[in-house]
Amino acid sequence: MSFNIIATPFRLSLVLVVLFSLAGCQSLSGKSEQAGLMGTGDLGLIIERASGSVLVVNTTRHDVLGRVEGLGDLSHASVVYSRDARYGYVFGRDGGLTKVDLLTGAIADRVIQSGNSIGGAISQDGRYVAVSNYEPGGVKVFDSETLELVADIPATWTNEQGETARSKTVGLVDAPGNQFVFSLFDAGEIWTLGIVDGEPEVSRYPAGKAPYDALITPDGRYYIAGLFGEDGLSMLDLWEPEAGVTEILPGYGKGEQQLPVYKMPHLEGWAIADGRAFVPAVGHHQVLVADMNDWSLVDRIPVQGQPVFVMASPDNRQIWVSFAHPKNDVVQVIDSSTREIVRTLEPGKAVLHMEFTPRGEEVWVSARDSNRVTVYNTRTLEPVAELNAEKPSGIFFTSRAHTLGL
Amino acid sequence: MSFNIIATPFRLSLVLVVLFSLAGCQSLSGKSEQAGLMGTGDLGLIIERASGSVLVVNTTRHDVLGRVEGLGDLSHASVVYSRDARYGYVFGRDGGLTKVDLLTGAIADRVIQSGNSIGGAISQDGRYVAVSNYEPGGVKVFDSETLELVADIPATWTNEQGETARSKTVGLVDAPGNQFVFSLFDAGEIWTLGIVDGEPEVSRYPAGKAPYDALITPDGRYYIAGLFGEDGLSMLDLWEPEAGVTEILPGYGKGEQQLPVYKMPHLEGWAIADGRAFVPAVGHHQVLVADMNDWSLVDRIPVQGQPVFVMASPDNRQIWVSFAHPKNDVVQVIDSSTREIVRTLEPGKAVLHMEFTPRGEEVWVSARDSNRVTVYNTRTLEPVAELNAEKPSGIFFTSRAHTLGL
Repeated sequence: MSFNIIATPFRLSLVLVVLFSLAGCQSLSGKSEQAGLMGTGDLGLIIERASGSVLVVNTTRHDVLGRVEGLGDLSHASVVYSRDARYGYVFGRDGGLTKVDLLTGAIADRVIQSGNSIGGAISQDGRYVAVSNYEPGGVKVFDSETLELVADIPATWTNEQGETARSKTVGLVDAPGNQFVFSLFDAGEIWTLGIVDGEPEVSRYPAGKAPYDALITPDGRYYIAGLFGEDGLSMLDLWEPEAGVTEILPGYGKGEQQLPVYKMPHLEGWAIADGRAFVPAVGHHQVLVADMNDWSLVDRIPVQGQPVFVMASPDNRQIWVSFAHPKNDVVQVIDSSTREIVRTLEPGKAVLHMEFTPRGEEVWVSARDSNRVTVYNTRTLEPVAELNAEKPSGIFFTSRAHTLGL
Repeated sequence: MSFNIIATPFRLSLVLVVLFSLAGCQSLSGKSEQAGLMGTGDLGLIIERASGSVLVVNTTRHDVLGRVEGLGDLSHASVVYSRDARYGYVFGRDGGLTKVDLLTGAIADRVIQSGNSIGGAISQDGRYVAVSNYEPGGVKVFDSETLELVADIPATWTNEQGETARSKTVGLVDAPGNQFVFSLFDAGEIWTLGIVDGEPEVSRYPAGKAPYDALITPDGRYYIAGLFGEDGLSMLDLWEPEAGVTEILPGYGKGEQQLPVYKMPHLEGWAIADGRAFVPAVGHHQVLVADMNDWSLVDRIPVQGQPVFVMASPDNRQIWVSFAHPKNDVVQVIDSSTREIVRTLEPGKAVLHMEFTPRGEEVWVSARDSNRVTVYNTRTLEPVAELNAEKPSGIFFTSRAHTLGL
């Protein structure tokens, strides 16, 4: 318990503060920044995948506040945020975990925690940051304040040769009850992980062959893993984990004649609108529509290429779709009620990611080979701003700090 | 379009910043605050209804950062937040609209915009703040940056005497497409309001007798108004507003034999979990459960008093219920899947409001006549902190900046 005695009115004091400014950029001409204080609710990070750098951006003014360098290999990087929306935790491909301070535009802390990693998550209470590792396999959990190691979960299993081995881990997300959930690619399992009195507590569930990625539904109830080794998807209901994993969408995956798969779709990108899940087909020029009550397939929406990200706008009105090579220079927008494509946009070459502003009035789209991020108004579907970026990939806004599973 | 040329690395400069500190409070001992910078993602405001003041709080450390005074009559007050989560717009009962800077703990701006008001909203893009007025009736829209008047909507109608009159307005919310939606108590209408090129655009829909409050569903699709003058609720589907208002839950309201109504329930407090709406009954010791597909009543959950707020935890797992006088010293927690009461808590005398932390690990509960706010862990249902406050009522966290309709 903490009890506070408060005094009024505020006493003002002068404090010397080191703030970041930026040459050659008009973005710091705003009144708030001149006064030296800044809210963090409208900030974000854009990954510059080739240069190991990130851009700090402001979504109200469509501005780049600055660049932070020295983050290592960001060829497959993602970001989660601290509870106060001040710090971004950047998960690099090379096992680097970097804590970026968006207010100072500097690296607050950085550890190389493995040889090869594939993303991470922050716990519901914001105290723990977990990283999903390929080499060596397993999950490591860090104190979000200090980046000190809290728990090392090697994700061991017994392979076909009867040897104990460490599994690659994928699809790591946070879940209600201050848990983490992840999948073991080699072991074919889903694990839940809680930190109770500083000690890790793990539960294991068989999950099918070679889960390669996963998502959690926005309410944190259903954890769904895609399988590389068989058709269908594996779903764990976290309200009843003791019931184990069930198979959903049995036809999903490689079961039908299809085109060569250029890129396995990102499961994080699933859209859920109006009781329907909009799912990227694997190796087909289609977005699949599933009824979430029984997970039956109710529709297939033809699109212009193999979808990678299928994302619902915050009002569930639109489904935005990005595509795999070689048809990755466009984005298509689907009306979620008519299920028809309402617009095909050309944001640039090699579109890699999309991020909606939290209330959904705009969406930011990165085009790697055009070195550009384009901001669209979601109502008019017209571009409203462009920002220069070096080979931009993932875009992550601080509102993720307040969203389960992101 | 704005194009930015950015330079790297950051150039550091020293800036003198006036920050707020606070005597007699340990809350500023954290490292971040000593350095003078602070993220705004884990902040909030608590209304002190009797003294015209608000507390600035930090939800990570369960701390009161300070008190801001001079906000007028806060006997029925609410708050919305700027896009950057730095400023709270406090709507007072006396027509006062106060912009509070959470970083400096000071009033940034304040206008008395009417004689009597009842809440407000901020537009999806964050540019406009609208206030719902009783006296004189209507809605006023302000620039969120400057608090300059942008539009004055008198909400006129022709009364039974054939005179043009101004209607009291209620249930004002923001909606996708950068709209506001509100109800006219006297005129019995629902209006949608957009600001297009600086000019207001209004559409009017008949809505039944005497709408007294309203809510919008979390995706911003359905606007639902409660009626004082007849049974049932009026719903406008904002995806098809041209279809007009339909009546839902026809038995809702005064139609059945019931107890004296001590307080009309807050509609904002509706919980929506798993396709079901959990609705406070009017004048009954019940929480109603409606199927959102056809809005049929599927269950009635007995509770210990007349519910005022019925709120779902962010993971939809729990429904928290507060009550009207005279049984307003407890809060009951319902399991949303079994629909059974799992715990009855006693947070203090005259419980007025509850606010979940954005990812739902905790909930803050105000008890006016105990001068106390209690923080509960939603997993253990045990208190984890208590904070002193003068006659606390509404609790509003900055994560509302990122949520449609809040």
